Formats: sequence, structure tokens, C-alpha cells
Amino acid sequence: MKKVLLTGFGPFGKDSLNPALLVIQELDGQKVALKNGGKTSEAEIITKELSVVFSKAINEFKTTVETTNPDLILSIGQAGGRMGISLERIGINVADADIADNEKNKPRDEPIVREGPAAYFTTINIRKSFNEVKQAGIPVKISNSAGTYVCNNLIYGALHFLTSNETYSKIKYGFIHIPYLPKQAAEKKKITPSMPLALIKEAILILIKGNLG
Amino acid sequence: MKKVLLTGFGPFGKDSLNPALLVIQELDGQKVALKNGGKTSEAEIITKELSVVFSKAINEFKTTVETTNPDLILSIGQAGGRMGISLERIGINVADADIADNEKNKPRDEPIVREGPAAYFTTINIRKSFNEVKQAGIPVKISNSAGTYVCNNLIYGALHFLTSNETYSKIKYGFIHIPYLPKQAAEKKKITPSMPLALIKEAILILIKGNLG
Amino acid sequence: MKKVLLTGFGPFGKDSLNPALLVIQELDGQKVALKNGGKTSEAEIITKELSVVFSKAINEFKTTVETTNPDLILSIGQAGGRMGISLERIGINVADADIADNEKNKPRDEPIVREGPAAYFTTINIRKSFNEVKQAGIPVKISNSAGTYVCNNLIYGALHFLTSNETYSKIKYGFIHIPYLPKQAAEKKKITPSMPLALIKEAILILIKGNLG
Amino acid sequence: MKKVLLTGFGPFGKDSLNPALLVIQELDGQKVALKNGGKTSEAEIITKELSVVFSKAINEFKTTVETTNPDLILSIGQAGGRMGISLERIGINVADADIADNEKNKPRDEPIVREGPAAYFTTINIRKSFNEVKQAGIPVKISNSAGTYVCNNLIYGALHFLTSNETYSKIKYGFIHIPYLPKQAAEKKKITPSMPLALIKEAILILIKGNLG
Repeated sequence: MKKVLLTGFGPFGKDSLNPALLVIQELDGQKVALKNGGKTSEAEIITKELSVVFSKAINEFKTTVETTNPDLILSIGQAGGRMGISLERIGINVADADIADNEKNKPRDEPIVREGPAAYFTTINIRKSFNEVKQAGIPVKISNSAGTYVCNNLIYGALHFLTSNETYSKIKYGFIHIPYLPKQAAEKKKITPSMPLALIKEAILILIKGNLG
Repeated sequence: MKKVLLTGFGPFGKDSLNPALLVIQELDGQKVALKNGGKTSEAEIITKELSVVFSKAINEFKTTVETTNPDLILSIGQAGGRMGISLERIGINVADADIADNEKNKPRDEPIVREGPAAYFTTINIRKSFNEVKQAGIPVKISNSAGTYVCNNLIYGALHFLTSNETYSKIKYGFIHIPYLPKQAAEKKKITPSMPLALIKEAILILIKGNLG
Repeated sequence: MKKVLLTGFGPFGKDSLNPALLVIQELDGQKVALKNGGKTSEAEIITKELSVVFSKAINEFKTTVETTNPDLILSIGQAGGRMGISLERIGINVADADIADNEKNKPRDEPIVREGPAAYFTTINIRKSFNEVKQAGIPVKISNSAGTYVCNNLIYGALHFLTSNETYSKIKYGFIHIPYLPKQAAEKKKITPSMPLALIKEAILILIKGNLG
Repeated sequence: MKKVLLTGFGPFGKDSLNPALLVIQELDGQKVALKNGGKTSEAEIITKELSVVFSKAINEFKTTVETTNPDLILSIGQAGGRMGISLERIGINVADADIADNEKNKPRDEPIVREGPAAYFTTINIRKSFNEVKQAGIPVKISNSAGTYVCNNLIYGALHFLTSNETYSKIKYGFIHIPYLPKQAAEKKKITPSMPLALIKEAILILIKGNLG
């Protein structure tokens, strides 16, 4: 049986919940039916919470990959203010923070991997994924920048690790930014876009089926 | 039994559906349990689709009020691009259209009612309604402008009619702008905010209970 | 010689300057050439700084009108985040503040004038003004809401005063919201729209000529 | 004497002017005074208009570099809707167009250079440039995505060419996205941010001095 690893960041800063974490908690352990031509099979979802800390998140990621060796990895992060599912196309070799992470790191224009390449493209089929999520009636976009904070750091670090290790170089890796949940948005002083958990989970399942089947 | 009239606009321009219409169709005929101190009672929901046409919508509104004589009226309109439920505070005496309505009317800076007052405030309890919807975890705002198109036209025309007729002057009137549904937003070229039908209906029920009970 | 009164709010909250004040300071005492058919004449600009305090601003306004008796009044306020000149169409009878004014007043859903009408329209020729400013290549819009803070309070209070006094009822009154200056915008953490002082002054002069000539 | 090459795109689509072109036309041939410790020197500005066509722009760029061999190159492109000067950090190896270029090319998720690296960082001192422009009171941001259209195509193609040729590998290369001019913004149906030409030119001169001196 194929294995999908979903990673999600824990609560950050003043927020007491991170919808990325809710998503992976609700999907943890689920079996996903896959179609591949005439054959059907199943994939199992395993999950891992990552710290909102620059280098620590990458280390936690590496250890999880080494112990689980999945076929597909989707990392999920919150991007408050976005209006739908964002499929990240690329991670770039820059750590540049305007606010400190949960361990007070605040890098400024630093490389994530010294002498590393400028960027790595995520390796899921991003156009097919975009079309399938959109087809399901879920607002979605392809994003060309995951910023330069902890999320981008994970994308770059994860892809650097996976592509540098022959054992793991065939694991597909994608990163998905998700909006606030409605109840989070309702608490903000200024009204802000949101998406319910059910739609987010549906999008994640579509991404799993489309990139594993 | 108390009666609530919900009005919703039909499809407009290039859009083939109007979520306002879906909302009222799904709520039509429902009974709503009301609490009033220790007593409980029920309200019945009746509905009316209105044309997206400047003066015609007001005329359809008047006829419906005369034949149904409700206790509370909530008019619902779509405002594509908004991020949550908008409770409109006021309708102003201006019809000013940048695009034509469904019968090609395109007024420019015209009064809705010649010699009418500059504006009417909606008569639901807007702060209580705001707090209750927010409390339920649904993104909501109080809006100080419903624009100068068919929606504002209805607000002003409805309140002018209700306050000018002794028979109807005690009917509470509110106007709610709602966002795109996710499936509508998913079809737009540029990603745009949305809210699922279930949350919109929940908000409308909260508004009914809070302004009738 | 005709007289134009320009009012501008002083610094507010954390900001150390208010571009509205800079505008009126630079225009104070200037003579403006007017064309009226074949005849030419001049208007003199006089100015008054108003406090960012709910009722005090209106009182300062009244006193200034009584002592100067101008032909045209343009009030100018900053609306950080707006992208161009905003010509306000209306002031509504609500004081509703999310942040306190400079004397810690923070009204919630209060009428400005108890038993006053719901709203007053500003009395400059707003469409002509819009067209002339746009024609001059300056980004401009007609706004249907000046909010419910000190600026809206002044619009409503000023128009209530002017229309309630026979002596002053022919004075034309307009309100203009202006964006941040570039140097203000440059200091914000997040990039935000701006407009240089020279363009703002040009727009104000166009408004004077168009509503007095 | 040092040489600075400024490139600017010509008019695109429905727009009859491109502010990037106006900027380089007004700066063409100017001498810029440089300070380097105690010494002063001068740089000469030369300019080149590039076609808004995917591969053609890169070819025009290469030819211009070969014939002029400058010390610093700043490419300028319009990004309508942006609120200030955008200093682009990176160009990525993707051509993905939602609208056709001036020769009807509309690539979808294609690499710019097959087997090329995922991205190149621009080589001006982006943080120092950011600080100096901001210090001058001009709204500015560092941008982590130049999109996937002709502008990004030029960044990637230019940096691929420069770093692949020993002769040119020391030429510093930057890309600057600029907002609409006020008169462009004034013509849009919906109000949109703008920046006057004088401020844009001032920012470009600051960038030249800061990266050559």
C-alpha cells in the first residue's frame, strides 16, 4: 500500500490554532482509494506536525522521511489573507523574515543552504492538480512565491534533501498554502477571506489521488 | 405564527446563478424556532425572487409586502468580491450604474425618489446581528454603503415604501450582501473570496432569530 | 472677491503629519483665477485646521463659517490606503468608531444629531468635479461612504449646520479624502498606495475652479 | 567612464504607452555622478527598448550587451496595480502566460532554458537598494516573484546569458517593476495605485548610484 505523508505547521505567534494542523489531524490514518487505469488500490495517510522554526522544521521533516519513506509528501501551511488553495510552484534559497519564528529566529536575506542552487521546483503535477481542484468547484491558484519565511524554508529544504538523496529522489513533493478558516476570519478585526475545513480537506484528497493514482 | 419574507435577486448579467436565489430557495417554507424570554414560538419563511431591474424590483417588493404582510423582511443580494456577510446599514437616494441592469437601464446620479430624503437606515438591530453572526464563527461586517446599483435601490425604495405606509411601518427591514459561493469563485479567472451556502444560510437564520424573537 | 474655505484635519494618532494639513497650508492665501463665461474673476483661499475630535471639529467648523462666510467650502481628510482623490457624496447620521479620536471619544452607533435626518448629500457638483479631475490625469473616484469616523462626522455636521441656517444655506460644501503622501507610504511596514502633494493640490484647485466659476 | 544599460519594454496589449519606456527615454544619455570613498566619477546611461515578446526580448538583450558591454544593467517593466517600486529578487525557469504577448505567444508551464537551473538571483545589492530608495521617501518593496510572463522571462534569460559568459559574468543585473503613472491610472475604470514619473526616475538614479559607486 502506498503511503502519503502530510506535514502541517503548528500554531504560530498569536494564533492559538493553525488550520494546517487541523487538516492533517482529521486526515491522519485515513485510507484513500486510488484509480490507476483499470486497477484500484489504496493509499494510507500518515501525518507529522512541524515546528514553526526555520531549521528545526527541516530537521523534523528529514527524520520523518527517513522513518516513514513515503511515496508522496504534501506539506500544508497557513497563509492568512489568501482566498483559496495555493499550489506553490517553487522554493527559493532565501530566508528573510519580517517577524521572528517561534524560537525568535529572524534571518535577513540569508541562504538556506550555502552554495545551494537558487531554487527547486516542487515535484507534484501542479497544472493537473490545479485543474482537478478547480473542476471540483474549489477556489485554487498556482502561486509562484511561497514568500521567504518558514514555509518557503521548508519547501527549499525538503526538496534539497529529497533530490540530494538517491533513496528519496523519487518521492513527489508538493506544498499547499491554505486560507484562514471561517471561525478564524470571524475573530479578526478586519474582515478577511476564509475557506471551510471540509473544502480544504477535499482539495487535499484530490491532490493525493491526482499525484499518486 | 410570525412571518419572515426573504427576497433574493435572480441571475444577473453573465452569471447563470445568483447565490442569493439559492439561499432563499433552500430556506423557503422552513419553520424557525424563536425564543422570547421563557416562551417559544415559530416563524415561517416565505420568499420572493426579485428582478435585477431598477424600478421593477421595488414594485415587485411592494406587491409582495401587500399580499403577505410579514413581520420581518431580509433582502439578500450578491456582492462578488466581499469576504463575508455584509449587514447594510443604509440605503441612499441615488441610482448610479456603471453597468446596465437586466433591462438595460443605466441611470447616472439620479434620485430614486424625487424629493425623497437623502437616505434611510435599515431597521433590523444591526449591532446585535453583527455580534451574533460573529459569535457563530461566520465572517461578518457592518457595511456603510450598499453602492448605488440595484441593491441600494431596493434598500432605499423598500424603506421609503415601508415607512410611508402606516400599515407597514412596523415591519423590520434588513439587507444582507453575500459573497460568491466557492464554485462561482472557482470559475473566475482571478482568485476571489467565497463563502459556502451552508454558512450563508446559518447566518440568515441567526438574523431571523435575533430580529424576531 | 469670492472666498473659498479649505479645512484640513491635524495629525492623528501615531502619525506625526497629516497631508490634509500640508495641502491647506500650502494653498493658504492663494488667489485662484476663475472663468465664468467671458468674465474672469478671482477667489481667495482661506484655511482652517480642525481637531481630530468628534464634536469639537464641528464646533470649530461652525465658528469659522460664522467669522468668514465663504462661498465654497472644501474639507480635506486623509484616508490612508486609498489610491486617489475620493469625492465624498454623502455624510450619514452615525458616529461609530473602532479607534478613539484625539480626545479618547469612541462612540458606538450613535446619531450625530438626535432626530436629524439619516444623511445629507454634499453640495458641490460631484460628477463635473470627477470628470475634470480625471481629465487632468489625476486618479479620482466618487465615494459613497466616508465611513463613520471623524470625517463623516464633519460632513454630516457641516451640512446639517449649513442647511439649517438660512444665512449659510447657499454655501456649497464638498469633502475630499486624499491618499498618503509617498514619504508617508515609504515609512509603512507594508507597501501602500500614495499620491504626491503637487497632484493633490492640483486636484483641489480644479475643484475650486469647477465649483465657483 | 562606467556605463549603465537601462532596458525598458515598449507598449503592450491595449496600452498605448509603457511608463518603463518613458523612464529610459528621459534618462538616456544622462551622466550620473558617482561617489566611491573620496573619489568621484561619472557613469553614462545608455538605453534599449525591448519587445514584449518572450524569446525576442532576450535576443535583443543579448545583442545589446554584446555591442555595449556595460558595467550595470537595470531592466524596467511595468506592473500595473503595484503600489511602488518593486525590486525583483529572482527570475525562475518558467514561461506561463495567461494572456498572449505582442506576437501571440502564450506558453503554458514551459521552461525558458531546457535543462537550465530552476532560478537565478538578480545580482544588484537588493537590500542596500531597498534601504536607499525607502530612505529617499519613495515607496519600495523587495519582490520575490516577477511572475511567469515576459518580465520574468527576461530576468531569467538575462542572468542565464550573463552568468554563462565569462566576458559578462561580472556585470551586475537588476530588474525593477514600476507602477502605473497617474495619468494611466486616471484612465482606468477602477481606481488603481500610481506613481509619478519624477519619483520613478529618482528611484532609478538611486539604484544606479548605489550599485556602481
